[in-house]
Amino acid sequence: MDYPLPLVTVDAVLLTLRAGGLEIALHQRDRAPYKDAMALPGGVVHVDEDASTEASIRRVLRDKTGFEPRYLEQLQVFSGPGRDPRKWSLSVSYVALVPAAELEAATQAGFRFVSVDALPPLAFDHADIVAAAVARLRGKSSYSTLPFFLLPERFTLTELQHTYEAILQTRLEKSNFRRKMEAWGVLEATEDYVLGAQRPARLYRLKDFALFDRSVG
Amino acid sequence: MDYPLPLVTVDAVLLTLRAGGLEIALHQRDRAPYKDAMALPGGVVHVDEDASTEASIRRVLRDKTGFEPRYLEQLQVFSGPGRDPRKWSLSVSYVALVPAAELEAATQAGFRFVSVDALPPLAFDHADIVAAAVARLRGKSSYSTLPFFLLPERFTLTELQHTYEAILQTRLEKSNFRRKMEAWGVLEATEDYVLGAQRPARLYRLKDFALFDRSVG
Repeated sequence: MDYPLPLVTVDAVLLTLRAGGLEIALHQRDRAPYKDAMALPGGVVHVDEDASTEASIRRVLRDKTGFEPRYLEQLQVFSGPGRDPRKWSLSVSYVALVPAAELEAATQAGFRFVSVDALPPLAFDHADIVAAAVARLRGKSSYSTLPFFLLPERFTLTELQHTYEAILQTRLEKSNFRRKMEAWGVLEATEDYVLGAQRPARLYRLKDFALFDRSVG
Repeated sequence: MDYPLPLVTVDAVLLTLRAGGLEIALHQRDRAPYKDAMALPGGVVHVDEDASTEASIRRVLRDKTGFEPRYLEQLQVFSGPGRDPRKWSLSVSYVALVPAAELEAATQAGFRFVSVDALPPLAFDHADIVAAAVARLRGKSSYSTLPFFLLPERFTLTELQHTYEAILQTRLEKSNFRRKMEAWGVLEATEDYVLGAQRPARLYRLKDFALFDRSVG
């Protein structure tokens, strides 16, 4: 082959819910280009060991954080001659939804949590990638169970409602919200309760982790 | 950089509506690998001239068909060591929606139209790419104006309904369908009519070509 090849990287937007808002986990780059800048965790594709770009991003996350996200979706390709000073490059970006406690435990030294509404300057075009990830999550959340992946395995209905509210950036009416969840038929009540301010609140879980998407079918 | 780079290509699924069903335009490969097999139109990224992978696929389509699709959307990356016998490769795939007359005029020698439900054996993993494109179109069509892009600029309400029916693979009730379109507020009546079997049918157009997506907002 007689044509120069682009540089191929993978990058992940690790989305979580903390302090009532959407945050992402960034890490500080330890080498050029953009040395010391905050960036999405990512790396180059290893053609000698990766079975696909999804395998690449899973390897990168395993190496940098030690964990495997339960929900990982391919987002979009960002590409062009100017986004990486080294050469024409292409990033296959991914979005992962991770419960806060799990992400906090996995991301140690060098990682920092920031609100998606108050990003510091980011390396490369990573701010564009974050914006695309947040738009994807918000666009899909009003008609799917995607927000459940930001919660721990068991949660109260109030926690579930607050999660939808944080993502959709709107207040939801409690009884309407509960009727909608009941109509979807995706919730399973457990036998356990947590003590709330007024009375014990029952813990629920998602019936199965297949993504429910009201718009299909 | 001391790591081997993947081969990067772009490929397009050119979807259209012919004889009441979804079809794609394939062309016959004139070189190895998969010489003589039917394949999606595509090519390698030219890092010396392309501003992005979207610019790459637009260049490829211009060169091979002479046209610019009005609707072009990035679909998904397909990648891995086994999909191209030459080396580890990555295809950034795109889906284009094109009115049949426009696509027929643009795709001359070497192109063939086939139903998405009766594909011949395709080169590489192109059958998987076609399946993803059809799933994307069907998934989005029930709540968006995406199907309008398969129609000429002006169309009758019956043609519009048949387009939705062909994509969604279901019969729609005429008055319900018209009420829904009215509620969306996306149609603009023209002053012109075509002669129908019973009485003249008015021609409509889409108010503007911004994609209307009911699920957002």
